[in-house]
Amino acid sequence: MKLVPILTATSLALSALPAMAQTEPLDDSALRADAQDVFEAIPEKMVAIKQTEENPEGVLLTPEQIELGKALFFDPRMSASGLISCQTCHNVGLGGVDGLPTSIGHGWQKGPRNAPTMLNAIFNAAQFWDGRAPDLAEQAKGPVQAGVEMSNTPDQVVNTINSMPEYVESFKAAFPGQDDPVTFDNFAAAIEQFEATLITPNSAFDRFLAGDDAAMSEQEKRGLQAFMETGCTACHYGVNLGGQDYHPFGLIAKPGAEVLPEGDTGRFEITQTVDDEYVFRAAPLRNVALTAPYFHSGVVWNLAEAVKIMSSAQIGTELTDQQAEDITAFLGTLTGEQPQIVHPILPVRTATTPLPAPM
Amino acid sequence: MKLVPILTATSLALSALPAMAQTEPLDDSALRADAQDVFEAIPEKMVAIKQTEENPEGVLLTPEQIELGKALFFDPRMSASGLISCQTCHNVGLGGVDGLPTSIGHGWQKGPRNAPTMLNAIFNAAQFWDGRAPDLAEQAKGPVQAGVEMSNTPDQVVNTINSMPEYVESFKAAFPGQDDPVTFDNFAAAIEQFEATLITPNSAFDRFLAGDDAAMSEQEKRGLQAFMETGCTACHYGVNLGGQDYHPFGLIAKPGAEVLPEGDTGRFEITQTVDDEYVFRAAPLRNVALTAPYFHSGVVWNLAEAVKIMSSAQIGTELTDQQAEDITAFLGTLTGEQPQIVHPILPVRTATTPLPAPM
Repeated sequence: MKLVPILTATSLALSALPAMAQTEPLDDSALRADAQDVFEAIPEKMVAIKQTEENPEGVLLTPEQIELGKALFFDPRMSASGLISCQTCHNVGLGGVDGLPTSIGHGWQKGPRNAPTMLNAIFNAAQFWDGRAPDLAEQAKGPVQAGVEMSNTPDQVVNTINSMPEYVESFKAAFPGQDDPVTFDNFAAAIEQFEATLITPNSAFDRFLAGDDAAMSEQEKRGLQAFMETGCTACHYGVNLGGQDYHPFGLIAKPGAEVLPEGDTGRFEITQTVDDEYVFRAAPLRNVALTAPYFHSGVVWNLAEAVKIMSSAQIGTELTDQQAEDITAFLGTLTGEQPQIVHPILPVRTATTPLPAPM
Repeated sequence: MKLVPILTATSLALSALPAMAQTEPLDDSALRADAQDVFEAIPEKMVAIKQTEENPEGVLLTPEQIELGKALFFDPRMSASGLISCQTCHNVGLGGVDGLPTSIGHGWQKGPRNAPTMLNAIFNAAQFWDGRAPDLAEQAKGPVQAGVEMSNTPDQVVNTINSMPEYVESFKAAFPGQDDPVTFDNFAAAIEQFEATLITPNSAFDRFLAGDDAAMSEQEKRGLQAFMETGCTACHYGVNLGGQDYHPFGLIAKPGAEVLPEGDTGRFEITQTVDDEYVFRAAPLRNVALTAPYFHSGVVWNLAEAVKIMSSAQIGTELTDQQAEDITAFLGTLTGEQPQIVHPILPVRTATTPLPAPM
């Protein structure tokens, strides 16, 4: 995976594209070569995760863990109320989000931030808007316990799973050789394995990257060029066009308080470091056309408007409407094949399954 | 479809089974013949609905309407909040229910009654606990508008659908030849078509009915015989073992106020007829082992306990523990093959899609 941040003076200075870029056809090969330097296609299929230099094979995905993780992902009984599952806020039919400004959780409480998509989230360097979870397993442990989300406890999750023999068998099969496989860690690991399969290959952009000139329209290509030339790639690079590192929201000009609420200081809340005030993980842009509303505050419903806000806030460029529309058209090419998920048939509760506790 | 109510003095008088029935093997052929007189198997596949004498062909199911109905069924944007879909309370992974005493809806309000399963609901003579909807299309219009459920309006549903070109195209394909196919009636008709496919054939009981002696254990067969002999079949007959007609809950002895809350007078609320006080539609029993908690009040979590309550309330019989366990074992044979549903990829919202209104 190539990860090439290219925040340079040159890229920041390119504040407007020459008018001819909008009329003359682009050189597809040159555009592709530039794009290949910065971006990478989503693979057709995931086989392993967590590859490192020390462990190049990483952790293999197994059908048993994936199936188990799918059941847990869709099971509302993992929440205290019995109503809310991972799928509630990360809907596989809605680009992996809930389409709400911020999520609704336990007791109809509103969450503090917009729910990010889990589609392709396996390619992010860290999870959550502030990157506080290093991987999807750690991430999965968060909402289950958050009082405003699923409001459950690890013990209650483990008790719930242990009360259903079908689940216990699935844990044994997914984690062979373990004496006591039903653990909160394995719960999270299985969900991570399932989520690692939720990738969206073969987008128009990836087909263009792979050599298909016809996969993108002229406008989409102009948008791609503008995206690279205006410096969006300083943060939005790699497989996910984002999700790799952290930047202050409002690097050049702070957006209004509606878009960037004062009370949410982002990564500062994790690190307590002044440099991290209003710092967020660069948003991954795969399938971004499906995941309105935008920003951690979830207040902007129009993608072109979001593009303009980011451009003025982060790189000090006031895009023309045409440029914003072109870049938006390009972002539309990041919509890939959505995962086809057969809804799991969940294990049957028993007399020892904890009762739902709505409030 | 044979529908043979057999509430007779004889069946009511058989208050206890001879002890030998629990030890001597049953005559499978005689038991099957008795069962075939009262029950009917679930078909492998649904082709049409609403067959009548005047219209024996009925309404054909079409792939276009089924697919559209599936999308609408799973789409939380059909609710005012954007959070709640049909699937929220009628979960295809949980036997078609939510597993809560009564459902949680808009604003975390509690619904008045336990959510019944939509699996095999196409075989019920009418829908809802009080049978106030003659069919699944009328039923589908209810929760969408109920303030404590999805809290939406027909106009808003139609506006939401019309705002998404993918939906409009799907309505055109599903209802060809109509000038303005995006209507609340067609919304409901498409959901009805999808729900008509949510059937669970090939249960152990249906395989026994079809001639497979080995499909049911001796205990399950004893339970089937007890179910018929004690008179459960007075209400629980036909394809769904219920769902055909109306009976007062507490025909012989009123259950306690927890099970039968005074404030919910059942069908009386529809008909305003004294005879209909505390009258409910006989509960369909297909997949009943998956659909705890039980009764319209949703307060009983144990199926054997529910069986005992019904027996004493409806037929004046105090079942022994063994009889209740046998009947419960038989009810477990009513669990059929659960539908394998690929989660739909939902249409993308546009600038004109109404915004979610959580409260």
